[in-house]
Amino acid sequence: MVKKYLMTPGPTPVPAAVAAAQTAEMVSHRGREFHELYQYVAATLRDVFGTKHEVYLLTGSGTCAMEAAVANLLSPGEKVLVVRSGHFGNRWAEILKEYGAMVKTIDVEWGRAVNPKLVAERLAEDTENEIRAVFATFVDTSTGAVTDVEEIGRMVNETNALFVVDAVSGLGATDYRMDEWYVDVTLSASQKSFMSPPGIAFLALSPKAWKVCERAKCPRYYWDLRKYRQWAERFETPYTPAVATVRALATALELMMEEGLPNIYARHERLARATRAGVTALGLRLFAINPANVLTVVRPPDEIGADDLRDHIARNYGVYLAGGQGQLKDRVIRIAHMGFVGPFDVVHAITALEMGLVDKGIVLELGTGAAAAEEILKEL
Amino acid sequence: MVKKYLMTPGPTPVPAAVAAAQTAEMVSHRGREFHELYQYVAATLRDVFGTKHEVYLLTGSGTCAMEAAVANLLSPGEKVLVVRSGHFGNRWAEILKEYGAMVKTIDVEWGRAVNPKLVAERLAEDTENEIRAVFATFVDTSTGAVTDVEEIGRMVNETNALFVVDAVSGLGATDYRMDEWYVDVTLSASQKSFMSPPGIAFLALSPKAWKVCERAKCPRYYWDLRKYRQWAERFETPYTPAVATVRALATALELMMEEGLPNIYARHERLARATRAGVTALGLRLFAINPANVLTVVRPPDEIGADDLRDHIARNYGVYLAGGQGQLKDRVIRIAHMGFVGPFDVVHAITALEMGLVDKGIVLELGTGAAAAEEILKEL
Repeated sequence: MVKKYLMTPGPTPVPAAVAAAQTAEMVSHRGREFHELYQYVAATLRDVFGTKHEVYLLTGSGTCAMEAAVANLLSPGEKVLVVRSGHFGNRWAEILKEYGAMVKTIDVEWGRAVNPKLVAERLAEDTENEIRAVFATFVDTSTGAVTDVEEIGRMVNETNALFVVDAVSGLGATDYRMDEWYVDVTLSASQKSFMSPPGIAFLALSPKAWKVCERAKCPRYYWDLRKYRQWAERFETPYTPAVATVRALATALELMMEEGLPNIYARHERLARATRAGVTALGLRLFAINPANVLTVVRPPDEIGADDLRDHIARNYGVYLAGGQGQLKDRVIRIAHMGFVGPFDVVHAITALEMGLVDKGIVLELGTGAAAAEEILKEL
Repeated sequence: MVKKYLMTPGPTPVPAAVAAAQTAEMVSHRGREFHELYQYVAATLRDVFGTKHEVYLLTGSGTCAMEAAVANLLSPGEKVLVVRSGHFGNRWAEILKEYGAMVKTIDVEWGRAVNPKLVAERLAEDTENEIRAVFATFVDTSTGAVTDVEEIGRMVNETNALFVVDAVSGLGATDYRMDEWYVDVTLSASQKSFMSPPGIAFLALSPKAWKVCERAKCPRYYWDLRKYRQWAERFETPYTPAVATVRALATALELMMEEGLPNIYARHERLARATRAGVTALGLRLFAINPANVLTVVRPPDEIGADDLRDHIARNYGVYLAGGQGQLKDRVIRIAHMGFVGPFDVVHAITALEMGLVDKGIVLELGTGAAAAEEILKEL
């Protein structure tokens, strides 16, 4: 037996109490027990989103919520601006094109975050006010870089455009304030920092977004948010939700509220810092210029294939790291440290990389990376 | 404490082994363990569907799969024919209109099934071959009536139209043969006869449907089946699937294969017959003319409100029955007997109804319904 350690950026490990919550007797999604569950989850998510607005639950993945945002806000032919700084920024552009948007992009070198001033410039150039919305990614899980949502939000807020943020990665582990940052739509999902099984996505809309939603002209049924708003009044969803997953999410949110959001953010900050120190000590290069606290993306030495190293580590040491996506295929290794993670998850990743690198012929002293990580992990 | 019995038609009760399967360590949806899970589920679903074609897994509810079918097959302005014999037939019409179809309907009195000849007539009238697809519902859970999919399939097969069947209700508990019956698209979901938690929907397409799918012109991304077909080759889904729910479904399918489909169908047939005998003995009227084997819809005596009786039974006896939908609101009670059900589920429903009716002032001898049901349940 090789004991396995899941360190991929979604799904992430699920605490036993969260997993066990799924085994409670099944209940109807139209009854009082589900209503209580829904009410708790929706209210608690509002706190995590940093919003006073209602948060709606969709049964689906993060991409489901991304498409829901597009289908509910867009009318074909409208001009939109996409900040494209990774695989998931590219996904925004793909979905928007599929729905007939005139997609303008700000193409950012992968690994960098967009300079918020660029967004302001593009909006200023739009003298006819044709750009209806700006789409961005909080943390692009493909690059590990974090976007300055606060600063962009301030700039978009001075225009008529909506600001739509994919916060699938980052939300729940990093400070995020939808209302204060003037974000009009925020979406996320259960399987990353919320340490729950995949299957539930959630999103919230500002009153400005609701006005657009009400008159938008793309076809939408399953994720028609106007219906979700109606049904939310009785703490229900229009269609059968993933009841067991909602239970898991409720338990995960209870654990999160017990720890407290500031403590969660501090824990992720420290684990990220330790991971970065560890990989840097091993001579690996950080891919992101402004790395996020939820995952660390590294470039292995040029003479080693990233996927070959990753496979070797998974097979021999049971540590499952993620590979590169899109243009980064076989070029990077992605180490997740989000959700149900503690100091020793960092130790697993760093020591597994150490051993793997040595196995592959890289000259380094075993323990080098661990030592660097421990220096930070022991800060009490 | 009032011990609770869930007898609503989805979600339905989940066996302990199925619920427990969700608690296994989380795995990546891009790794070998998930591949094995996916492969088993997809292959076994093919047997249940009665198809040689690939079955694809969507994270979402049954409605998600219905909209996926529409978005993948339709181009705006195309003419379609919907057999509308209940709430879910009506949902087909709603989704199709949302996507710009020219929707023609065959409106069937709720509780009756469409006469297949009517479908043939409407297709024969379509001398220009404008009807691109016929949409029907295997069992409309709102009425409890079963549609003769086999006979309609034979008729549609003589035309160029596709035949699309919502089998969310019925599939897995009642004989169904997608290929033999010339069904082009069949869809279903995890939370009814598959005795799994809600969150996964599945659908299969004939080669004739694939041809239409490839050139259809509605926007689609999350449920673009062309991508599902590509990813299925490596036993994956394009976007993060509900991994824990897939595990549950795999375990449920194992239990189903152990029992054997003919035995499952016979069990449901007997339980349905016993339920019908029981409610009839209590003087309740069956709503469906040709009732399905997965649920029984009854009309309570005129002097009693259906929802009032239902609430009384839930509150006092812990038996949760479903109410009427759409035009049947407060007019019927729906008793599910699908999936993880045995003789005593029927006994619960019948005896709870007996006690409830007497509580509400109806004159009847306690045990009358139970006796009638037992006569059938004891057939070994």
